[in-house]
Amino acid sequence: MDEKTARKLAFIFEADKLKGINRRNRLLNENRAENTAEHSWHSILMAMAFAEEAPAGTDMLKVLKMIALHDIVEIYAGDTFFYDEKAYVGKFERESEAIEKITNLLPDAEKEEFKSLWFEFENQQTTESVFANAVDQLMPVLLNAENNGLSWTENGVTAEQVRKKMKVIEKASPVLKEVFDSAIQKAIEKKLLQ
Amino acid sequence: MDEKTARKLAFIFEADKLKGINRRNRLLNENRAENTAEHSWHSILMAMAFAEEAPAGTDMLKVLKMIALHDIVEIYAGDTFFYDEKAYVGKFERESEAIEKITNLLPDAEKEEFKSLWFEFENQQTTESVFANAVDQLMPVLLNAENNGLSWTENGVTAEQVRKKMKVIEKASPVLKEVFDSAIQKAIEKKLLQ
Repeated sequence: MDEKTARKLAFIFEADKLKGINRRNRLLNENRAENTAEHSWHSILMAMAFAEEAPAGTDMLKVLKMIALHDIVEIYAGDTFFYDEKAYVGKFERESEAIEKITNLLPDAEKEEFKSLWFEFENQQTTESVFANAVDQLMPVLLNAENNGLSWTENGVTAEQVRKKMKVIEKASPVLKEVFDSAIQKAIEKKLLQ
Repeated sequence: MDEKTARKLAFIFEADKLKGINRRNRLLNENRAENTAEHSWHSILMAMAFAEEAPAGTDMLKVLKMIALHDIVEIYAGDTFFYDEKAYVGKFERESEAIEKITNLLPDAEKEEFKSLWFEFENQQTTESVFANAVDQLMPVLLNAENNGLSWTENGVTAEQVRKKMKVIEKASPVLKEVFDSAIQKAIEKKLLQ
């Protein structure tokens, strides 16, 4: 096996650790925390189901790749709770180091491609990254509004906080915004959001 | 929210159940069974890392979509252990019914697209489906050869059985075949395969 192949395998084996990173939100059908690998798959499926809502010309391959990769930094940087302002301090720096560390396992071409996708996702300056971020942020809101919203109630999250953090959904698509508003409405009625 | 959007959400919520379907193989870093949602994400990442090994002109968007979708039938049909010949009887029929059932939740356009991707994956007649199948089949072999291979030792699986079932890897790419052979060799040395 050549070095390039061995490096790709090292990356794949390291990535396995994402299955052990737990998020705050629970699953719909089981009372356990969702892990980040599952969340990444579910978000890819959501992007596929709502692909027609992405602006014409959106490169969906790039969208799916970004979603598959965006949370891989959590292997080293951990999952940062979305509404914890204090934990957010230094998040970008910690995660930038983490993407450097994990992509260093890869051969040069894949390293550059994956790093570039990760920074594009983070910067939210392209159609693809806006759509990918919107789907990623919408997923836990949808799950929380359907189940008992524990990650909100346990942490005293308000509807205002959720709305404020999720401007990218409005930017991405009117339909995703409608889905978001409807989930927030449901959560308020169920008293899951203060 | 229009009916089309509501149907897509119903599909996304139903798909959450895949996180509760456990496979035989364990994770690399934790002694628990891998669930099918995690496996789907990890296989997508593998396809991305080895994309250059797919034949020129391979539609990688289709490959990633197929991998994201191919196991969703397990929500109703369960995970069929790859080396259990008895359990394989009627597998295609059970899973065909399952893909019908879950995609029935979707609007017509997405229903047809997702069903068609699923059957294309199953039939292994296109470049994209051969590559997607190869990655999907390679993943548990890689994990087993690296960890303690419990899903093989518990079930008395032989190297011959693994090689016989995995012809699609050779068809997909010489490099993936090399990765496969090297994992099998490692597993034999570690006495994980009879």
